[in-house]
Amino acid sequence: MSENIVASDSFEAYLISHPFLGKPENLYNPMNYIMQLGGKRMRPKLLLLAYQSVNGHPGKDVYQLALSIEAFHNFSLLHDDIMDNAPIRRGKKTVHEEWNTATAILAGDNLLIQCYDLILKTSLPNKPELLNEFSIMATQVCEGQQMDMNLPTQEHITDEEYLQMIRLKTAVLPACALKMGALAANASMDRADVFYDFGLNLGMAFQLQDDFLDTFGSSEETGKQEGGDIIENKRTLLFLHAMRTLTGSDKEELLHWFNEKPDNPSNKIDRVRTLFKQAQSDQFLMNLKADFEMHALANIDIACENSSNKAHVLALFDLLKTRKA
Amino acid sequence: MSENIVASDSFEAYLISHPFLGKPENLYNPMNYIMQLGGKRMRPKLLLLAYQSVNGHPGKDVYQLALSIEAFHNFSLLHDDIMDNAPIRRGKKTVHEEWNTATAILAGDNLLIQCYDLILKTSLPNKPELLNEFSIMATQVCEGQQMDMNLPTQEHITDEEYLQMIRLKTAVLPACALKMGALAANASMDRADVFYDFGLNLGMAFQLQDDFLDTFGSSEETGKQEGGDIIENKRTLLFLHAMRTLTGSDKEELLHWFNEKPDNPSNKIDRVRTLFKQAQSDQFLMNLKADFEMHALANIDIACENSSNKAHVLALFDLLKTRKA
Repeated sequence: MSENIVASDSFEAYLISHPFLGKPENLYNPMNYIMQLGGKRMRPKLLLLAYQSVNGHPGKDVYQLALSIEAFHNFSLLHDDIMDNAPIRRGKKTVHEEWNTATAILAGDNLLIQCYDLILKTSLPNKPELLNEFSIMATQVCEGQQMDMNLPTQEHITDEEYLQMIRLKTAVLPACALKMGALAANASMDRADVFYDFGLNLGMAFQLQDDFLDTFGSSEETGKQEGGDIIENKRTLLFLHAMRTLTGSDKEELLHWFNEKPDNPSNKIDRVRTLFKQAQSDQFLMNLKADFEMHALANIDIACENSSNKAHVLALFDLLKTRKA
Repeated sequence: MSENIVASDSFEAYLISHPFLGKPENLYNPMNYIMQLGGKRMRPKLLLLAYQSVNGHPGKDVYQLALSIEAFHNFSLLHDDIMDNAPIRRGKKTVHEEWNTATAILAGDNLLIQCYDLILKTSLPNKPELLNEFSIMATQVCEGQQMDMNLPTQEHITDEEYLQMIRLKTAVLPACALKMGALAANASMDRADVFYDFGLNLGMAFQLQDDFLDTFGSSEETGKQEGGDIIENKRTLLFLHAMRTLTGSDKEELLHWFNEKPDNPSNKIDRVRTLFKQAQSDQFLMNLKADFEMHALANIDIACENSSNKAHVLALFDLLKTRKA
């Protein structure tokens, strides 16, 4: 009865057959360009899974809702890439590189407007709640992005501030996707909130894994520049933990590296990795990640109770948990 | 009974007492900064006027709707200023100059999200229609902005293409404001559409007047750089008309100037103005503007029938019609 949305390409097929249409072409082409660069389509799949867990097979309106979530994710990537001056996204030129910054800003704006439009054009009975959830999430993602941009010049950062930043910047989006899927399926607000918490815990674990891989993963595994956070002197949880754990010359050395940007960073990456491991900051991060995963699993148990779909949710969860990239 | 919203400062007071609140501060400060730079608040006043013409005194929800329209206007100014590299807005530094480009992009994004949020948080019965109208307008403004950015590299431009560009970039916003005000007051869709047409014709006349002042107004009158469009070689209706009217060496001279950017532009401005007048392009533009004004007046007659508020609408209309800046 319950189709495996995680494994299926049904969302990808829906996305490809529903490009954004309008003129001028050089406004709409960049929107469709970024939407079709690929990716795991994790967030829309979470929305569809939540729907399915509550109420069986999702129809056209629910796919449209899922598309809105994927469009929002792409809007934020598009504008983030401008802010970060990033030349490459998923192995292709970023929108501002392929077109120009002005068009990239505008295409992002229109993508954000089309997110609301997609939700507005569904005929789901609880559209007002869906729009509210979406809007709260969208605001929070902006707040998280600004918090992230503030980190380099912020004098003191607490773990909680860092966690709040990734919560807003990364975790509320999958949380919102799951809650919207549940709400669209007429779940009670209580049950929808459990889906939200599942997404939040999943998103936190996901981002901490991302931080871990960025520092300790090889570029063969991740497909990204090795040690990018170290090169950029990003004060992630690993750095915050190591700074309060190390003493004497070790602490001084770490601080030294985080004030340098050597042309050849390989020695810096090696040394910082070693210092992080010496402080057991890698273990600290993995323990924290495990906590979030444990909570996510508990959420699944409640949210998917009596649902034949639970196996699929767990499959997605395992997929995300064990990912290397 | 009917308060004169055009003359009153009630909207300004509402705006000042309803700043956007949230953290981090350097995300919300730029949003409030641009909102509080001043301006005529024409678009929210049009919304309030339309409401008043249909249904008496507007309450809190309608002011919130008007704030959403003003926030959208400011969102588009904020992002346009980045795209245009503009250093000054209303005599103050633009947001990307006062903060930086990344924060300006993000503050604009959040301003756009807050527009939807403001509408969502009203308890007006026809919220779905209001959100639809808003979303259509928002999409069109993006399309108009991209069309405007395409003009410099576009080989051939027709009058209709230019008019369509200003219709989308400028006129649909006051049109939407008026229609939303009427809809919020439970006007029939037919009557609301007449308000829309009024706003569209008013907006077109307004923009053509803007084009006229940019070329023929003095900087004392307009408070802007004199002959800005001429300096930038903008192919406005004046240029399009003059190019098809002038012949021989006059046409060649005009074309010559539009391929030059002299350090001291005063001679260029003088000569282009003279050529435009010789082609009677100024008269052409004023005739076109008069057409739109005539249609706007006819719309007012229908939209404000039996309304004690008609005098106020006409007063605003006259104010906009005779403006020099």
